[in-house]
Amino acid sequence: MTGRSLDLLFLSADDISSLDLQPAEVLDAVEQGLRAHGLGEVVMPPKDHLSVEEQFQGHFNILKAYVPAFGFAGVKVIGDYVNNYRHDLPSELALLTLYQAETGTPVAIMDATELTWMRTGAVTALGAKHLARRDSKVLGHLGARGTAWYNLRYLDHLYDLDEIRVTSRRPESRERFAAEMSEILGKPVAAVADVEAAVAGADIVVDASRLSEERTILENRWLEPGALVMPYGAVRSTDPELPLIAGKFVVDDWRQAAGSEHGQYYTLIRDGRLTRDHVYAEIGEIVAAAKPGREGDDELIVFWHRGFAISDIAVGSLALRRAQELGLGTRVEMASAVRDS
Amino acid sequence: MTGRSLDLLFLSADDISSLDLQPAEVLDAVEQGLRAHGLGEVVMPPKDHLSVEEQFQGHFNILKAYVPAFGFAGVKVIGDYVNNYRHDLPSELALLTLYQAETGTPVAIMDATELTWMRTGAVTALGAKHLARRDSKVLGHLGARGTAWYNLRYLDHLYDLDEIRVTSRRPESRERFAAEMSEILGKPVAAVADVEAAVAGADIVVDASRLSEERTILENRWLEPGALVMPYGAVRSTDPELPLIAGKFVVDDWRQAAGSEHGQYYTLIRDGRLTRDHVYAEIGEIVAAAKPGREGDDELIVFWHRGFAISDIAVGSLALRRAQELGLGTRVEMASAVRDS
Repeated sequence: MTGRSLDLLFLSADDISSLDLQPAEVLDAVEQGLRAHGLGEVVMPPKDHLSVEEQFQGHFNILKAYVPAFGFAGVKVIGDYVNNYRHDLPSELALLTLYQAETGTPVAIMDATELTWMRTGAVTALGAKHLARRDSKVLGHLGARGTAWYNLRYLDHLYDLDEIRVTSRRPESRERFAAEMSEILGKPVAAVADVEAAVAGADIVVDASRLSEERTILENRWLEPGALVMPYGAVRSTDPELPLIAGKFVVDDWRQAAGSEHGQYYTLIRDGRLTRDHVYAEIGEIVAAAKPGREGDDELIVFWHRGFAISDIAVGSLALRRAQELGLGTRVEMASAVRDS
Repeated sequence: MTGRSLDLLFLSADDISSLDLQPAEVLDAVEQGLRAHGLGEVVMPPKDHLSVEEQFQGHFNILKAYVPAFGFAGVKVIGDYVNNYRHDLPSELALLTLYQAETGTPVAIMDATELTWMRTGAVTALGAKHLARRDSKVLGHLGARGTAWYNLRYLDHLYDLDEIRVTSRRPESRERFAAEMSEILGKPVAAVADVEAAVAGADIVVDASRLSEERTILENRWLEPGALVMPYGAVRSTDPELPLIAGKFVVDDWRQAAGSEHGQYYTLIRDGRLTRDHVYAEIGEIVAAAKPGREGDDELIVFWHRGFAISDIAVGSLALRRAQELGLGTRVEMASAVRDS
């Protein structure tokens, strides 16, 4: 009945912060994941949900994948509760578990709340790397929470932006966000009063708004020809025609997007107005150079990312490797002696 | 940016063992879960899978539910790797995370390998409680690993059996299992050489075999009228006609069973030979007294359980409560200060 002992590494939110992961390494890791996806070198069933919306206006998203490039299988469970501020809690709390893919043995469990923002920001920035005009200098950003921190950091890392305009529903939160981001980036970040002021004339438009019901807050007429628009709220906030009139409409994973009951364009898909035929490519195909990205300076490109487990495993693997190098985290014994039956 | 701290309780396999959970309390908890399922008082999407069969002959099962009766939402991830013995590891390794359903905050993470055996054994025993003849005294059991330990313990707890016969593929494992179970139960447990010797004339037949491909090892002609048969291997091992000729065919959750590509009867369902019309009831409906269980001494009843997250949350909640009472487990900090954005 005796056997080997098993332990795993637990990484808290504080441990993850202490790793001080740099934009270049996060972007590299996430890009490697997107490439693997584009080459079909991953196992990733669509993300799954456990809904307690009726009871508590919340749900869990459950994301899982195996990515040979990183050597791990992984499962992330992330809660999404709009009323958590009433409990002095963030709306999203996430745990990521990485497994040895060869045996299913858990290797590490980590707080993945900030890692989720990072990997989402990285996908936004990598979308811009492959789909924005090379001379992009002006960013218009909707939303001042969570992923917004990393959208700005990573986009600025790649494009060294000249002008960054941010808007959000509450003036105090956008002011605070703009002030803090200004300090982080060492350049001005402007908090502006409305969506038009944020996006008019912008080269790159990120819509990370979180509406409670569908509404067009981002109007097509404000968008420049040649702009890249990346809307990824859970509820539609752009004109429903936007993906249909775009020169190129790019997604991260069509099967997952089409199978879900959440996401910016899910009602359009449900109603049959947006189909696989409207999709130019999945971003991984472009990263893997199977299809060209931007092909002209006046192409309006829309990149809709829903987020997928591959990116979680990418940043999680990076975090684990760095934590092991630095000796960070808490070793927890899972079993002193596993038994065979 | 400051906020409350979050921590969670980690329970190792050793902690779970130390709880020394008793048959009566495990059966009570699992029965409460079955009743909630029967009354429709749960949220439970079908279990989900991440397969690395092609790469490593393994897969992960991902089970999740919210059970108001226990106050928690839960997600269990359990690996199933047939070749793990080569790495000196059990084929199944499981982690269960319990969440506050109101906010999605993780409360506890526990090794759920043994808890999985316990909850499965409890469902087997509760199946017998509601579906076996009251005077059942003879048990025939196929399989001598994992769940077998708890099938025997809990069935004997409910029926104080006179005769227990066990067979399995390898003589040394069934001998060892029979000897150890004899000691645990304080009564003889016979290791027998083949399936017929185990099941002929038995009142309760449990088929926990683990075949690598479909094959009829349990023949209908060996079964007594009035027997209860509970086959739950991942691969068909009974006569394919068994569920069709049974007086009553009972399942745990039809939607989950029909939606999966694993389980004793999945190829029959896939081929349209076994349908919802063949199902007399889900076990929870019988536990909740919405439908009668056994109605005659010569009814051949088949109860096929696939296992579901409700039972994991039932035993997990019990384990957590007991660990809190005993002060067992390791507190791990998830975040020293959660931030709202």
